Amino acid sequence: MNQKIKWLRDKISRMDMQGMIISNPTNIKYLLGVKAEGILLLTRKENIYITDARYIEKVNSMLTIDDEIIVTDIRDVSQEDYENFFMFCENVGFEENYLTYAKYKTYLQLYKINNFVETGNIIEKQRMIKDEYEIECIKEACRITDDCFTYIQNFIKKGMTEKEIAREIENYFLLHGADGLAFDTIVASGSNSSMPHAVPTDRKIVSGDIITIDFGCKYKGYCSDMTRNIFVDFVQDYIKPVYALVLKNQTLTLKEYYDGANVRVLSKMVENDFKLNNFDLVHALGHGVGLDIHEEPTISSKKGDFLLRENMVITNEPGIYIAGKFGVRIEDTVLITKSGAQTLTNSSKDYVIIHPKE
Amino acid sequence: MNQKIKWLRDKISRMDMQGMIISNPTNIKYLLGVKAEGILLLTRKENIYITDARYIEKVNSMLTIDDEIIVTDIRDVSQEDYENFFMFCENVGFEENYLTYAKYKTYLQLYKINNFVETGNIIEKQRMIKDEYEIECIKEACRITDDCFTYIQNFIKKGMTEKEIAREIENYFLLHGADGLAFDTIVASGSNSSMPHAVPTDRKIVSGDIITIDFGCKYKGYCSDMTRNIFVDFVQDYIKPVYALVLKNQTLTLKEYYDGANVRVLSKMVENDFKLNNFDLVHALGHGVGLDIHEEPTISSKKGDFLLRENMVITNEPGIYIAGKFGVRIEDTVLITKSGAQTLTNSSKDYVIIHPKE
Repeated sequence: MNQKIKWLRDKISRMDMQGMIISNPTNIKYLLGVKAEGILLLTRKENIYITDARYIEKVNSMLTIDDEIIVTDIRDVSQEDYENFFMFCENVGFEENYLTYAKYKTYLQLYKINNFVETGNIIEKQRMIKDEYEIECIKEACRITDDCFTYIQNFIKKGMTEKEIAREIENYFLLHGADGLAFDTIVASGSNSSMPHAVPTDRKIVSGDIITIDFGCKYKGYCSDMTRNIFVDFVQDYIKPVYALVLKNQTLTLKEYYDGANVRVLSKMVENDFKLNNFDLVHALGHGVGLDIHEEPTISSKKGDFLLRENMVITNEPGIYIAGKFGVRIEDTVLITKSGAQTLTNSSKDYVIIHPKE
Repeated sequence: MNQKIKWLRDKISRMDMQGMIISNPTNIKYLLGVKAEGILLLTRKENIYITDARYIEKVNSMLTIDDEIIVTDIRDVSQEDYENFFMFCENVGFEENYLTYAKYKTYLQLYKINNFVETGNIIEKQRMIKDEYEIECIKEACRITDDCFTYIQNFIKKGMTEKEIAREIENYFLLHGADGLAFDTIVASGSNSSMPHAVPTDRKIVSGDIITIDFGCKYKGYCSDMTRNIFVDFVQDYIKPVYALVLKNQTLTLKEYYDGANVRVLSKMVENDFKLNNFDLVHALGHGVGLDIHEEPTISSKKGDFLLRENMVITNEPGIYIAGKFGVRIEDTVLITKSGAQTLTNSSKDYVIIHPKE
């Protein structure tokens, strides 16, 4: 049987569940390696993936007999089938953080489930710890991202818009082996950089700009995530102390990203140092990265005492934003190892100053 | 007050609700014109948008005092505030098709809600009927899509991959006024076209190929959706009867897309004609298009007797797929008017045969 499914069956069995309905597509991609619309049922004896005619051919081509997954067209599933799937199950698990309230009610009735029970993100928690294959995919996505950053420094010209730069980044990814974007690329120049989630605009690059670029690609479905700031011709004096403060915190925190580190304490370190300088950390210090760009865990002081573990892949991204003026964020994707943090994105964090033509 | 919020307040009042929590970001974009992460509360007297520091600046720049929306940073909302928001509300509505089961439970407790009641997609239903501005935006997205189809016919070369064609389409969109993609572009050539939801591959275009292209862009947030098939050098004889059958059904159905038409009957028409020819309609005949690429209503015989109404924007997309061989789908985005259907995507549906170079 598919090893991840075997793990999940053991897991739910120990939680006294005799079945589970998995509907989060990222969890299904993690378990089956298949990206399609459908629903995975673990019943007492079988693993059943119900999908529709649009995906049957693709899914069948990706699974082998050893996976022990029965692929079924939703049109071939009768009312009686639904009622039989979990007939001898006392407790059936579901993903309470994915299933909508409406679907919860529908499933309860459709499958005639005795006890429909929350599973506390068991799959998401397992996904936090990456295996060798997953780490290799993320490393490759990060390598492409680093190369893209080198490339884009020479591409930027004065008078070019944020949108044009973002488009070139996205093209670079697709032309250099990525399967897609990890998220919509952020290119925020001048005062636009004060918005952490800026959308690229038609603003044109001018001398003296800071350009914040937050970007990442997917390789075999796995994401990278990096933020760097590019300076056009020179670094404005008013930016320097803020950049130094962000960089200091990003570098110091990185040393604290190790197996056993407490995420609350990590975030507090940065929050406190920012406060001493009259700034706030307005977003989480970081997040897990994998098949989703934002995964567990969240590195935040609001999340309680959660400890980092070996083979988690996490971002480290302190930032300071001064409304209407500018913002600085420096972000790496980081692998937690027994001995500390291994940075997977390796572009320079010193001032990157370019001298582009008009 | 913002007119859409005013409408919604009247609507829930007539449903005996004194408050509502809106969390679906597309619904919030529809109501406020703002795309950000946050939650909109209609309390007895106020409209409160709770967002976070990443978006405060952007959101404030987009709302005016006449909107009567209080924008609040989530960090400034206390436990007491949450409990006060709906203090004198007997019934508070929520979006049962968006809110997860976990969030439902959290909100119930956080806001100390008396009766947390389902709202039956009231906002999604309102979104089905487009106003003049929305129709103009969709028309513009469709116009860009038509132009892109003309452009791409000259761009395709033999030996080019599906991925390269998809990337060029996406570039075209961004360079010609679109804000983004309506969905991931499908370019499926040769036997890949048999998968309705194919993902572009490295397969190279050769003479005799059918290339199915399903694509669309966004203009001011509003989507277009079109599918056409391009033939390389000539049309294979075995494709001709299938193409003719799909085209016949697409054309005939279009004449039946009018105010008052029954979606179940529309779909049945196509299903029956396909069956007569030993084929199946394996997906819905169409879907609403707007801020989301897939909106209500779904044009399907499984959906019961739902009637089309003036100013709905809907796709018409019959398709036939022969596993391992090929597929044909022809799709337009259509505006329902009093007098019939107005096709918003106007690219030719005759055989589009290109004679590209190597």
